[in-house]
Amino acid sequence: MSKEITSRSDDYSQWYIDLVRKAGLADYSAVKGCMVIKPYGFAIWENMRDTLDRMFKDTGHQNAYFPLFIPKSFLSKEAAHVEGFAKECAVVTHYRLKNAEDGSGVVVDPDAKLEEELIVRPTSETIIWNTYAGWIQSYRDLPLLINQWANVVRWEMRTRLFLRTAEFLWQEGHTAHETKEEAVAEARTMLDVYADFAEHWMALPVVKGVKTANERFAGAEDTYCIEALMQDGWALQAGTSHFLGQNFAKAFDVQFSTRDNTREYVWATSWGVSTRLMGALVMAHSDDEGLVIPPRLAPMQVVIVPIPKPLPELDEAVQTIAADLRALGIRVKVDNDDQNRPGYKFAEYEKLGVPVRLGVGKRDLDQGVIEVARRDTKEKQSVPMEGLAQHVKQLLDEIQQNLFQRALAFRAEHTTRVDTWEEFVDVLDNKRGFISAHWDGTPETEQEIKELTKATIRCIPLESEHGASVEEGLCIRTGKPSRQRVLFARAY
Amino acid sequence: MSKEITSRSDDYSQWYIDLVRKAGLADYSAVKGCMVIKPYGFAIWENMRDTLDRMFKDTGHQNAYFPLFIPKSFLSKEAAHVEGFAKECAVVTHYRLKNAEDGSGVVVDPDAKLEEELIVRPTSETIIWNTYAGWIQSYRDLPLLINQWANVVRWEMRTRLFLRTAEFLWQEGHTAHETKEEAVAEARTMLDVYADFAEHWMALPVVKGVKTANERFAGAEDTYCIEALMQDGWALQAGTSHFLGQNFAKAFDVQFSTRDNTREYVWATSWGVSTRLMGALVMAHSDDEGLVIPPRLAPMQVVIVPIPKPLPELDEAVQTIAADLRALGIRVKVDNDDQNRPGYKFAEYEKLGVPVRLGVGKRDLDQGVIEVARRDTKEKQSVPMEGLAQHVKQLLDEIQQNLFQRALAFRAEHTTRVDTWEEFVDVLDNKRGFISAHWDGTPETEQEIKELTKATIRCIPLESEHGASVEEGLCIRTGKPSRQRVLFARAY
Repeated sequence: MSKEITSRSDDYSQWYIDLVRKAGLADYSAVKGCMVIKPYGFAIWENMRDTLDRMFKDTGHQNAYFPLFIPKSFLSKEAAHVEGFAKECAVVTHYRLKNAEDGSGVVVDPDAKLEEELIVRPTSETIIWNTYAGWIQSYRDLPLLINQWANVVRWEMRTRLFLRTAEFLWQEGHTAHETKEEAVAEARTMLDVYADFAEHWMALPVVKGVKTANERFAGAEDTYCIEALMQDGWALQAGTSHFLGQNFAKAFDVQFSTRDNTREYVWATSWGVSTRLMGALVMAHSDDEGLVIPPRLAPMQVVIVPIPKPLPELDEAVQTIAADLRALGIRVKVDNDDQNRPGYKFAEYEKLGVPVRLGVGKRDLDQGVIEVARRDTKEKQSVPMEGLAQHVKQLLDEIQQNLFQRALAFRAEHTTRVDTWEEFVDVLDNKRGFISAHWDGTPETEQEIKELTKATIRCIPLESEHGASVEEGLCIRTGKPSRQRVLFARAY
Repeated sequence: MSKEITSRSDDYSQWYIDLVRKAGLADYSAVKGCMVIKPYGFAIWENMRDTLDRMFKDTGHQNAYFPLFIPKSFLSKEAAHVEGFAKECAVVTHYRLKNAEDGSGVVVDPDAKLEEELIVRPTSETIIWNTYAGWIQSYRDLPLLINQWANVVRWEMRTRLFLRTAEFLWQEGHTAHETKEEAVAEARTMLDVYADFAEHWMALPVVKGVKTANERFAGAEDTYCIEALMQDGWALQAGTSHFLGQNFAKAFDVQFSTRDNTREYVWATSWGVSTRLMGALVMAHSDDEGLVIPPRLAPMQVVIVPIPKPLPELDEAVQTIAADLRALGIRVKVDNDDQNRPGYKFAEYEKLGVPVRLGVGKRDLDQGVIEVARRDTKEKQSVPMEGLAQHVKQLLDEIQQNLFQRALAFRAEHTTRVDTWEEFVDVLDNKRGFISAHWDGTPETEQEIKELTKATIRCIPLESEHGASVEEGLCIRTGKPSRQRVLFARAY
């Protein structure tokens, strides 16, 4: 076990923070609530971002960029939206500093006060719909399928690296459509894209669902979400896709000429995932030794360590192996550092979560084999040089699959069907995980359960394997009738 | 000539704005000074960004991300730096809004005033060097080679799309080194990377030089730059690379243990290019019909237009051509719109600057040929179907070269050696362009020339072809002795 990193059983929360900091993913900054994303963390984020970006483009979306600032009055135009965001936003009030008269430094110049304050975007619906008003005249301008990669700011008092920070990086899709049906279909399509990404790239099984009214995005008619389970049995919302109805079109007067020459308000969606996914990635797979990164997202998929150190007689084999792997499109690091011993290096690469480590030693080479160690199971194996690259390629696929299956099995073990309040409380406190239970459908009951237990309804599942099918039952709290189970959990 | 776009001879400045807006690159937003980068403009920027990003990584740099906000006190720590940026920054003073008591909307909550104001980063030296203080202990931690892609804000009263906006997108490299020599070499290397990108991707010839003290970055010891010439004879600074000495290391107390166990302050560089390059791209190559985009950066390199419209009997040929081009890595759009006639489409694609247009018509097909039109010279040619893809690939290379050569010839014509004040003023007002002239080396003379003529010293050239070699002469303004010519111009 790495001495730098608290073990999960000692303190899960501290384990997470230690890991994020010690593995070089992120760190706190001098600005309260804001983080620095360090190079290794950013390299993982780049892989996530580039993959998602391709998926967005493959589904017909284009990128654009809208202003960082939102005039204060724009926020107020959609009633639920301002209610949701006004209490946590950074406000720009001045546009100049000047030298303090006492020579103590610089102070805000009172003569440079803005007529209208600007809000640092917490999300961009308002500035974007204000812009769309100029872009959309006719059904020929629709659908408008735009995505933005950006930083956003939501002032948070209690922050945690990646999971909850005042500033974070994200993408926000904002689309405009002719019909309600088309907008709903778009929101569902993007939910599927997110689920596909989570499961096939992050190796993170997710439940697709829809939020209750209490948990809906401020300004949405429906919020679809993907929910994942972390190793401590807490849930994490990994992405949301909103059907916004005509709310923003009405707030910003965005009408279009329809095919039959009437005027109608445009239908909208928005959808986003953020650097929060980095937190999910860490908490889903990693262990007390360090990160475990799914191969498809790992900046280094394979590291080659000459044993006992870089030597001329090992170099040809090392370079040949590296070249063979790279020819298959595998991301390889050759460790030619001669300061540290292999044991130290092994621990370092375990901490960094490199999926496969190859040890290249003289004795092994003489026998025509290489030591192959996998990060997920920590198994080691001697593999013939002949065909090594293909072997490693398959192994990377196998590790990707294994991480997903492991997380899937964990979720299956930690999803419990519950029919009584006593059992609900017991599972929540002791076994944790998702709880599939009946609920009477009222916001009041949902709120009461949250206050009593800190558990929230993560979603009303959309897929029958998670309880989407009709099933008559009684609410665990009120005993009133219910027609579908929902998923409860304590959540990040 | 496109009716939407003012001609260059009528009003160059209006031509630029018309073009940027009508070709879908960018537009003004509801936020004063901030622009919206539209999908087509953003697609070009993505090509620029991704190319530069590869070049940075190939020269050993990693990406990271630092906070948007900078504590006010950080700015003051480097004296020249605060002087340079304090007068144009967006200041966050509060972190919450609340409902106005009169029900008129939301107002700033006076109870949510920040103890210390936060500045929206105009550039990130201060927050980054504050962070580096925790990352750098020993020479083993050096060099530290980090780049950030980010948005920055510099409050501007007079803005122009891409060229000068309150918010813009850029990259900023921030590196830390053991020695002065290594830091200077890094600043020069990145200047070479920028010049390489400008010339080989943007087809934009640039002069490499060093700024005079007056024009130096606030906090730098030396600012290296690349300077380009626009079609109206004005210069544009396309990128800068700064040798920062130990200024920021001293301001943030970043010392390291040297190889011989002493403590020394770290040596620094920073370097950046921004969405301003989009403005340079437009102004260097485009014409009265619209954009002219160098093939290597064009989102669509080839457009295929079926003539007179999409027809079943043309479709096989169209799809085959598209597939053949894509197999060579060429970005192709097939225009299957059947609302508009070819003439309209041709004008549209000229406006968008698509380098090559293929017209596919029945009669041509019967003769086994395709009409190939190039955007740069507007020449058309019938080309045999056989070998068409290879022909187009070569043509794209030729267009890329031609744009560069054309801009190079323009610059040669518009670079004038001048030895008297009368001639200086005459060339500046009538011929324009770069003026190579002697200057006595004093900030006072430079300032006087600027006040009299609005011309600035763009750079002291580093390459002998632009006047870097020692040459005795007399200052055009004061007649005092000078040992090297410098480049003057009016500049964006």
